[in-house]
Amino acid sequence: MSRIVLYMWMSLDGFITGPDDGPGLGLGRGGERLHQALALDDGADPTSIRAADEVSAQVLAEAMDTGAVLTGRRTFDHGGRWNGDHHDGVPIFVLTRSTPAEPAPGHARWVTDVREAAALARNAAGDRDVLLHGAEAARAFLAAGELDELSLQIVPVLLGQGRRLFDGMPPEHVELELVRVLEHPEVLHTRYRVRKADAREVPL
Amino acid sequence: MSRIVLYMWMSLDGFITGPDDGPGLGLGRGGERLHQALALDDGADPTSIRAADEVSAQVLAEAMDTGAVLTGRRTFDHGGRWNGDHHDGVPIFVLTRSTPAEPAPGHARWVTDVREAAALARNAAGDRDVLLHGAEAARAFLAAGELDELSLQIVPVLLGQGRRLFDGMPPEHVELELVRVLEHPEVLHTRYRVRKADAREVPL
Repeated sequence: MSRIVLYMWMSLDGFITGPDDGPGLGLGRGGERLHQALALDDGADPTSIRAADEVSAQVLAEAMDTGAVLTGRRTFDHGGRWNGDHHDGVPIFVLTRSTPAEPAPGHARWVTDVREAAALARNAAGDRDVLLHGAEAARAFLAAGELDELSLQIVPVLLGQGRRLFDGMPPEHVELELVRVLEHPEVLHTRYRVRKADAREVPL
Repeated sequence: MSRIVLYMWMSLDGFITGPDDGPGLGLGRGGERLHQALALDDGADPTSIRAADEVSAQVLAEAMDTGAVLTGRRTFDHGGRWNGDHHDGVPIFVLTRSTPAEPAPGHARWVTDVREAAALARNAAGDRDVLLHGAEAARAFLAAGELDELSLQIVPVLLGQGRRLFDGMPPEHVELELVRVLEHPEVLHTRYRVRKADAREVPL
């Protein structure tokens, strides 16, 4: 079955944006440091991203080889809604609390239910993975048991402030399995598998 | 010159304790998960720590080969003050806001100034490194430009809540250099060098 994989670039202190992120400033103040290993010709168009090194290129290629995109509403809006096409015209499912009056642009559609969004995305992706975007969405899919893997690119910098990937979580432990490390001076690429409760090997 | 090196076991979501840490519960509720790769015969005595695997053993040996210990007051108190001897009778400098009425036990002494504490510890360690303990102390030494390296053992778990290593920091970026990765299924051992402002290679 298609896996839902979160792709994020995160500072060592856990931030995925600098302070004051918002529309037109998706990475917050100074947050572009996190994407230094990527060269974005145009922030609004993910297909214009180029990797600065071979390892980043490999991870980026994996992200862009996914067959569907799941994203939170905030990430979608802050990224200019990608003009309705994240990559290759694959379906984009935007998790939102309430369905906006306007239709979602291009290949995007609004979904208000986490499990429905996960099912739609897995189905659309077929035998490919689903690319998950956004911290709040990641926490929602994790809580619903629908997050399968985390591809976390750990950037060697402390941002000090900004939006955290993991924040406001319940105190329950989520056990992970480190399945891959790709080392590069500019970014430490990690990939973790979420150990689902029914498959947990080590009792808490 | 002797380097000041922070040694910490941290969850992937950035916590170094579970919730409600305090005296007698130094790792907070559930925080002992972070030290699962270490077998502590007696939490109050660091010399009773044994590593569960060769990689953890190597990192632990490096920590215990240091020539002085720097610690924050909270970590010192929560750890039962190590009965005045962290390891091998090396000097322990305890950073505290105000000097307690009672003398520090054993090889420990109170210090109220960050730079004085750093200088005393470096001098005491001679040609060996200084072991730094505690999140609040780490932030104080980092802010003072006295933190040289971070030996961070990233544990594959999300704790969700607890005390963060990096919290309440100023928004200034601190650039790091990844100098070593030791991979093990149970813990990802990273070592970062702090790029000092005057040696910063990449302008922000």
